[in-house]
Amino acid sequence: MFHLLDIIGTLAFAMSGALTAMSKKMDAFGVFIIAFVTAVGGGTLRDVLIGRTPVGWMLDLEYVYVIAAAFVLAIVFRKKFDRLRTSLFLFDTIGLGVFTLIGLEKGIGVGLHPMICIALGTMTACFGGVIRDILCTEIPVIFRKEIYATICILGGIVFFALKKFNLNDDVLYLITSSVIISFRLMAVKFKWYLPTFESK
Amino acid sequence: MFHLLDIIGTLAFAMSGALTAMSKKMDAFGVFIIAFVTAVGGGTLRDVLIGRTPVGWMLDLEYVYVIAAAFVLAIVFRKKFDRLRTSLFLFDTIGLGVFTLIGLEKGIGVGLHPMICIALGTMTACFGGVIRDILCTEIPVIFRKEIYATICILGGIVFFALKKFNLNDDVLYLITSSVIISFRLMAVKFKWYLPTFESK
Amino acid sequence: MFHLLDIIGTLAFAMSGALTAMSKKMDAFGVFIIAFVTAVGGGTLRDVLIGRTPVGWMLDLEYVYVIAAAFVLAIVFRKKFDRLRTSLFLFDTIGLGVFTLIGLEKGIGVGLHPMICIALGTMTACFGGVIRDILCTEIPVIFRKEIYATICILGGIVFFALKKFNLNDDVLYLITSSVIISFRLMAVKFKWYLPTFESK
Repeated sequence: MFHLLDIIGTLAFAMSGALTAMSKKMDAFGVFIIAFVTAVGGGTLRDVLIGRTPVGWMLDLEYVYVIAAAFVLAIVFRKKFDRLRTSLFLFDTIGLGVFTLIGLEKGIGVGLHPMICIALGTMTACFGGVIRDILCTEIPVIFRKEIYATICILGGIVFFALKKFNLNDDVLYLITSSVIISFRLMAVKFKWYLPTFESK
Repeated sequence: MFHLLDIIGTLAFAMSGALTAMSKKMDAFGVFIIAFVTAVGGGTLRDVLIGRTPVGWMLDLEYVYVIAAAFVLAIVFRKKFDRLRTSLFLFDTIGLGVFTLIGLEKGIGVGLHPMICIALGTMTACFGGVIRDILCTEIPVIFRKEIYATICILGGIVFFALKKFNLNDDVLYLITSSVIISFRLMAVKFKWYLPTFESK
Repeated sequence: MFHLLDIIGTLAFAMSGALTAMSKKMDAFGVFIIAFVTAVGGGTLRDVLIGRTPVGWMLDLEYVYVIAAAFVLAIVFRKKFDRLRTSLFLFDTIGLGVFTLIGLEKGIGVGLHPMICIALGTMTACFGGVIRDILCTEIPVIFRKEIYATICILGGIVFFALKKFNLNDDVLYLITSSVIISFRLMAVKFKWYLPTFESK
């Protein structure tokens, strides 16, 4: 089940990357690379920073296949994404929850402090999008308006707060990802934003 | 021989980086750094992702010397590059072939799947240019128009296809790099491009 | 003492990052991340390239706390930075000296060639700013006009030149950082710049 959600998230992230790249008029190689880094860039950065090398996708080709599928789907359905917008947004939100959990677990596995684990969870879920934006020479959208990373941080805090109660792992995962997913849905519905600061 | 070609490729990559940096009006430090990352950025990224650290150029100072020479040459001859354009393009193409082979071999050395080895070969040959473009805040040229990375991928496929026949390594290297070099020359001569996709 | 200077430098780097991010109209998360990478990005890149993982700030939370404090201070005092400009510049200059020394020492600790150690010192001191600029989609300022990295290189050369005399470490550190700090002050006062190159 968790594995299936990971695949759904990877697919959604890769498709969103492919769409961005197409809107930037990139060629097929560019579209593939942007799809790729959007999907696995956050996890790759995490792996590099904690020294887990070769990085994840080099050892588990399933990610490569899923991204290749997303690449093809994005090209074939590129003119029909208006109708798919809602599904894609839901999948993306699932990815947010699942990727955060994966990052949290990797940090715990290396024995890092909870605060660093939360940073790793957020990185896993959000920094693929940061790398995508940088490769498209845009200021990363999550630094400007989308309330996205903050929700991963919140999810991480909930995770460690609940962890003290010795909950079953499945329950812990379910609650954490539900918190992330529901807050993300509410943030979009109610247009929640983080403050910006007027400096002189 | 192979070693000599590696040096020629490094020189050409560094000079192309230096020229880009000068056209962006960077100062001497900026020109040096862009020359440096264009030449060794792809290999550095590869080393970091497979956990081969300290990365290559930190252990083999020859690269540093070659890049320093390229830096000086690029500054001295900066107004005469029109006449050198053809030589530089040839050297750059040699670099493409050699760097791809080096990346393939490093991947095999770590025991990775052929598909990942091909990704590493392409990364070694092409991602120095990606880092150069990002540091100059341009969308990477190989994502937009140059058919460049695709040829490295093709070379990698040829490499693994031939490897099954237990060819002598020298022959294998020669054929693979010849394929890459000749396809690159044809791509430029016949103006081959990858498709782009009009998304609505 | 050295430790205190490290903290002052981290604080200054993080505050300069936060100010840049605010001027780009980023939200609170963006401001925090830019503050973070400006302060520890150079050291993180260094750690990744030499294989010292998990990278420094993941094991020493003090950096995280100092950056969080800088983040709060930058937001609270964001309209009063004109008056703080001189102090901040001095702190930043102290950071330049201290971070260079830290990078030099890490390189020596891994047994790398002095030239590479100097590169690592410069990277530690200067590449947080490079990452900050890239995340703000600006061509890095140290590639264009600020004479900044060159002074770290000079400091590194002085360091290794003096090291031959078997000086006490404290004396060695004091002289090297004094050289860096005083040259930086002079560079700004006398408006020293590196040459740029007009290519046709």
